[in-house]
Amino acid sequence: RYFHFCKLPGRVMGIRLLRFTSVVIIVLLLVAGALTALLPNIKDDKLPNLRREPKPQSQSALDSFTLIMQTYNRTDLLLKLLNHYQAIPNLHKVIVVWNNIGEKTPEEMWNSLGPHPVPVVFKVQSVNRMRNRLQNFPELETKAVLMMDDDTLVSAHDLAFAFSVWQQFPEHIVGFVPRKHISTPSGVYSYGSFELQNPGFGNGDQYSMVLIGAAFFHSGYLEDFQRQPEAVYALIDETQNCDDIAMNFLVAKRTGKPSGVFVKPVDIRNLEKDTNSGYSGMWHRAEHLLQRSYCVNKLVSIYDGMPLKYSNIMISQFGFPNYANHKNKM
Amino acid sequence: RYFHFCKLPGRVMGIRLLRFTSVVIIVLLLVAGALTALLPNIKDDKLPNLRREPKPQSQSALDSFTLIMQTYNRTDLLLKLLNHYQAIPNLHKVIVVWNNIGEKTPEEMWNSLGPHPVPVVFKVQSVNRMRNRLQNFPELETKAVLMMDDDTLVSAHDLAFAFSVWQQFPEHIVGFVPRKHISTPSGVYSYGSFELQNPGFGNGDQYSMVLIGAAFFHSGYLEDFQRQPEAVYALIDETQNCDDIAMNFLVAKRTGKPSGVFVKPVDIRNLEKDTNSGYSGMWHRAEHLLQRSYCVNKLVSIYDGMPLKYSNIMISQFGFPNYANHKNKM
Repeated sequence: RYFHFCKLPGRVMGIRLLRFTSVVIIVLLLVAGALTALLPNIKDDKLPNLRREPKPQSQSALDSFTLIMQTYNRTDLLLKLLNHYQAIPNLHKVIVVWNNIGEKTPEEMWNSLGPHPVPVVFKVQSVNRMRNRLQNFPELETKAVLMMDDDTLVSAHDLAFAFSVWQQFPEHIVGFVPRKHISTPSGVYSYGSFELQNPGFGNGDQYSMVLIGAAFFHSGYLEDFQRQPEAVYALIDETQNCDDIAMNFLVAKRTGKPSGVFVKPVDIRNLEKDTNSGYSGMWHRAEHLLQRSYCVNKLVSIYDGMPLKYSNIMISQFGFPNYANHKNKM
Repeated sequence: RYFHFCKLPGRVMGIRLLRFTSVVIIVLLLVAGALTALLPNIKDDKLPNLRREPKPQSQSALDSFTLIMQTYNRTDLLLKLLNHYQAIPNLHKVIVVWNNIGEKTPEEMWNSLGPHPVPVVFKVQSVNRMRNRLQNFPELETKAVLMMDDDTLVSAHDLAFAFSVWQQFPEHIVGFVPRKHISTPSGVYSYGSFELQNPGFGNGDQYSMVLIGAAFFHSGYLEDFQRQPEAVYALIDETQNCDDIAMNFLVAKRTGKPSGVFVKPVDIRNLEKDTNSGYSGMWHRAEHLLQRSYCVNKLVSIYDGMPLKYSNIMISQFGFPNYANHKNKM
């Protein structure tokens, strides 16, 4: 007799079982498929970043900035500030310019206390120079730089707002500390703040510089700084001061406009008194302000003219912190 | 004998006299020339404007602005305000848009109380329309327009500063009254001020319009306004409202940026309560705000999209009125 599967009880049972099993398997696969289709949506709600952006950097280099912080003899403040600044919105990376020559960086300790929101790079320097922070660091990937002194705390709200302002004024130094120069009939310039006379262009005061120790500026200016006359480097090295004044000259000369845009900070603090190192900043030296006036005049001679321009624009954030901070009597 | 002039005593005397006279004349001319060269310098110090600019207008059309003020049923306020505004720095001319149909303008009285610092033109209208003030007046010579409501007093200091800000942002409406629209899940927009929820882009509030009843803008936008779709005119005429919202739509669409830049006024007052006419402004009508929300939605349909963009930039004057108004705790 020929082998017909229908007639074979054992095999018939086997086939039915096979069919049944196949159906069960297909049904299970469909159910599994359905579940898989549902599952990513739940995952999306919970962990969007992990799914979408590459793991180490969650910020596109176009919409974020690099914090460059130079440090000397205030590692306790540095670490306190790093805890704060590492979590600022739109931060891409931190570059710490390590001016503590011969001393180990806190990199090991930093790593042992990870993970951290963004990469932090410790750039060990060979000489303790003020202008070390103005190098064109290869680690710098973003268009924007946020430069902070290692004793200055600016709130995240202020930084987020100032960054958005910088994005609207990318060729300017957008920051929190305005200063000015004034002319005198002798032609000699003097440097100062609001305690100096107003420059006399209409009502009120004017500023002609925004200090880079708490400011956003375009990373291209670091490139430009590498091409400054030797005399500029010599001046900064001689005074261990004035790198910020030099940057304002550079920007003003380049743009033909006021170098800075002043954003009025809501919460900016100097943590100097909180350091255990006993080291107080350069600006406490007796000659500090006189040096800065000296630098202004030297730079005018190097630039063969005064490129700094005045501005009286003061920017604040509409409706923050007080949602009616623009209300008027009308 | 031949006629030789050397031999004729009378003629010789005549020639010597002629030579002498010529020398005297030449010397006098040289002295006069020297004096003329000296004279302008002295004149310069004392009366620069009269020497350089044509007499009736002492403001160049490039560095000055035209005030356009529409008026209806509040001539007492108009005249009070004109006395104030006629003396604002950098004002070129005033154009009064006379919406009091059939009523004589106060031109005679105005002239009898002259001279005035600038020319004032009374433009008699044939129909009382809100959008009359948005005509492209032939008398308009300046790039900048200052538009003011006929019940609003802004200090000269505020106006001088805001004009300088407009010169830095000439494609924007630079003014003192910010407003916003908000979206709702239904897609229907609503109009309001800070009492409405924040639009939700980061911290704080945002504005998407600056009202033209107290603002500087480029006179080119009046030209552009003449080319708006009929539906826009119909909307403004139907509501006797919303010409300012329409202008913000126009500017935002044109620039692709936020239409306005808000300058926080130090001293802005509504003089409405001071009028003897008993007439109170349109904004007291019960339906005023609802109309404005209605206008926003109508304009979105006319524009086939929402061109308005948000901004949170609030500009104040550095060091004025308080010379240390930017001081911080650092």
